[in-house]
Amino acid sequence: MRWAACVEYDGSGYHGWQSQPHASSVQDTLEAALSRLADGSIRTVCSGRTDAGVHAQGQIVHFDTEVERSTRAWLLGTNRYLPDDIALQWVVPAAADFHARFGAIAREYRYWILDRTAPSALWRNRALHSHSRLDAEAMNTAAQHLAGRHDFSAFRAAACQAKTPWRDLQTITVVRRGDWLRLDVRANAFLHHMVRNIVGSLLHVGRAEKPPQWIADVLATGDRTRAGMTAPAQGLSLRRVHYPPAFVLPEAASDDVGW
Amino acid sequence: MRWAACVEYDGSGYHGWQSQPHASSVQDTLEAALSRLADGSIRTVCSGRTDAGVHAQGQIVHFDTEVERSTRAWLLGTNRYLPDDIALQWVVPAAADFHARFGAIAREYRYWILDRTAPSALWRNRALHSHSRLDAEAMNTAAQHLAGRHDFSAFRAAACQAKTPWRDLQTITVVRRGDWLRLDVRANAFLHHMVRNIVGSLLHVGRAEKPPQWIADVLATGDRTRAGMTAPAQGLSLRRVHYPPAFVLPEAASDDVGW
Repeated sequence: MRWAACVEYDGSGYHGWQSQPHASSVQDTLEAALSRLADGSIRTVCSGRTDAGVHAQGQIVHFDTEVERSTRAWLLGTNRYLPDDIALQWVVPAAADFHARFGAIAREYRYWILDRTAPSALWRNRALHSHSRLDAEAMNTAAQHLAGRHDFSAFRAAACQAKTPWRDLQTITVVRRGDWLRLDVRANAFLHHMVRNIVGSLLHVGRAEKPPQWIADVLATGDRTRAGMTAPAQGLSLRRVHYPPAFVLPEAASDDVGW
Repeated sequence: MRWAACVEYDGSGYHGWQSQPHASSVQDTLEAALSRLADGSIRTVCSGRTDAGVHAQGQIVHFDTEVERSTRAWLLGTNRYLPDDIALQWVVPAAADFHARFGAIAREYRYWILDRTAPSALWRNRALHSHSRLDAEAMNTAAQHLAGRHDFSAFRAAACQAKTPWRDLQTITVVRRGDWLRLDVRANAFLHHMVRNIVGSLLHVGRAEKPPQWIADVLATGDRTRAGMTAPAQGLSLRRVHYPPAFVLPEAASDDVGW
């Protein structure tokens, strides 16, 4: 029988999602808890790996098992065996043809930036600290050049293993509230480091070092060396993964304090 | 010369504000950084101690020193020597008669509660997780019985060393947004554990175990054993401290993601 689950995690203490031989990963930790509850080995497939230090509020996984447990037992039992920086949000029975990775039709990521003189002690692992005041409106204008179906080679990590650099970026917004900037982006899928490379490039526009049009030029070149630096991992989180409506899944976890 | 400073900290890793012989405190850590910058011993006086695990976005301290440094050097230099779970937000010259504790005329605390089935991995050190759905409106109604000048003995820790249990509670509100409840309370000063005991009592109202009027009854008895349990430390943070307008101080740090 196949199950689907939503996982929230604080990526600060992990070497990313993916199972690794000599480092602690979210996947290994989750599978250990599920396997302990099932009293047998359980492997998971996720919607998309996240890098070291990247968080998730709505990572989706599926797993197969012959062991019979109620949805409530899977949820509460697994959470009892998990460290408190990983928490299942829901577990539901899934159709046999549900696939967390190949079935996903869209992913949403969020990136937090705090711009003020002093760093934040409470948000040190959740946001990028920018010392200079950023022009959020210019960043949002620039970001709109990325909307649509494009070859995103300019924002792709050298190590990226995707077969094609083409992605359909559905929406991207940058908004400010007080000292906080929030970037939300949704695409059918993302290349390795794509969001962090986009953020690193938009920072140049936010600091008025480049005009908004520059982002369109960088995109058109397809040249990674033309874009900005990869923004730090800690500002990024995977918020939601979307599947075709035929697969009815619960809502993702709550956002940060309701915003 | 006297200086005033605003301190943000994540209390998770500390045994509270106050200097302790065998445990790490925010005060000791801050004084070590200030002393290192000044190349001489600096002691601080804070607006009010916080317990182990309690956070602050707007703790205020003052300190005296003969060492001459610019406001910018105090801010950036001290932050360089501090661990990243403590960060000065501003440092300004203060009048000789400014006193962080005795001069304060009001304090504001905030308490976060997340009510949903699953716990939050990302907010594990910042909010109380309530498994049962809480009636925020009933909690807010109940809380209004506490507004005004009262003997708060019923919400006072046994270890409290204050000379009088009378406090002037100026405002208290409980509001909900999504799965989040936010309690904001402002008083001239607080007794030991007062906010956490109030929260622990309001939880009974939120779960409909007691009517809102019960809070008024508990307050009137002055009997600590009648009130609710002390709510966990991690949901609480000291947001702002107010001084007479004659002492012109910068604004406190930003709130969480602008809410």
